[in-house]
Amino acid sequence: MNHHPQYPVITISREFGSGGHSIAQQLAQLLEIPFYDENIITQVAKASGYTKEFIAETGESMSKAKRLVNDFLLSNAPGFDNPQDVIFAAQKKVILAAAQSPCVIVGRCGDYILKQAGIAACHVLIYADDQQRAAYIEKKYGQTDVPIEKRLRDKDKQRKTYYQHYTGQAWGNYRNYHLCLDSGYLGAQRAAQLLFAFIKTLANA
Amino acid sequence: MNHHPQYPVITISREFGSGGHSIAQQLAQLLEIPFYDENIITQVAKASGYTKEFIAETGESMSKAKRLVNDFLLSNAPGFDNPQDVIFAAQKKVILAAAQSPCVIVGRCGDYILKQAGIAACHVLIYADDQQRAAYIEKKYGQTDVPIEKRLRDKDKQRKTYYQHYTGQAWGNYRNYHLCLDSGYLGAQRAAQLLFAFIKTLANA
Repeated sequence: MNHHPQYPVITISREFGSGGHSIAQQLAQLLEIPFYDENIITQVAKASGYTKEFIAETGESMSKAKRLVNDFLLSNAPGFDNPQDVIFAAQKKVILAAAQSPCVIVGRCGDYILKQAGIAACHVLIYADDQQRAAYIEKKYGQTDVPIEKRLRDKDKQRKTYYQHYTGQAWGNYRNYHLCLDSGYLGAQRAAQLLFAFIKTLANA
Repeated sequence: MNHHPQYPVITISREFGSGGHSIAQQLAQLLEIPFYDENIITQVAKASGYTKEFIAETGESMSKAKRLVNDFLLSNAPGFDNPQDVIFAAQKKVILAAAQSPCVIVGRCGDYILKQAGIAACHVLIYADDQQRAAYIEKKYGQTDVPIEKRLRDKDKQRKTYYQHYTGQAWGNYRNYHLCLDSGYLGAQRAAQLLFAFIKTLANA
């Protein structure tokens, strides 16, 4: 039984060090809907087994012809045996299943995966300026031998590369989101509350 | 007497056809603070006379040396006799004066002008997808001989060129704003109300 049919599925993309993960978690708690982050999505995918059967699209709506093509692609796609591609395909399947009812999904190209599948969702981007992100990272992960600035740059690059690889799109175009929010300006708690108000406004349409 | 010292100065940048002008106006009404758009800013600048005396920075905080440099630049800068540059300089002066107390400023590179002057403000971007913008433009301005898509493209290009010319920055980087909002997703009225909630949240910090 779904108690919040009026809430949309929400994807949250975030910059490293913006606190977006924690804000997304707070938002899910405020809305009382499930929260999916990379860890959870990967756990579900693992528990389901990284098998071709699990990964393959087997929706009832899929035509026999499309299923044949799909099976062919699964068995012949170059790079499909690349562990990262297998993991991505399994995560995608978990995201599509999760999005059957209201939930909050963080990262993992959730925005793109749902758009491609034609599933309506509310897409949010959370960011902050470099100074705020550096302070957040230092507080959360502590100092290492690598300067904070370099850790920021490396992680930004890694996320952008990942997103671009799996979506074919550049990361960071505001037009991909319904709302983009500077969490450093508001602070994490008020950012979560503003998002809560945003989603409630949507739900009361 | 300023009745709303807790509200920030708010700049609203917007895409053509996003309804951002009308949303900004509603926001100013909700907050009960002054609203400045291109027309008003230009009227104030005109009424003040497009004179070098009006345009020159004459703040008391300006050192004599800086004032001399400023006067020199005003009298010698290439292109300063370009009417558009004179108008921009006069508009800038009006924006800086307006930003001495809480208000809503639409367009005219207000975000950049205030940042350069070190004046704290809340910067908002309003956009919408092309389909929503086309519908808005057709409803507001009617059809012309020029297809809607071309009118969108031309106006987008014109605004981007203007912004880039006077700020030296590319237009449309979400990092230049504290909040970016898809008005087509929420609808104009709810967009204004969400911004109202956002500003009130800030003010109650």
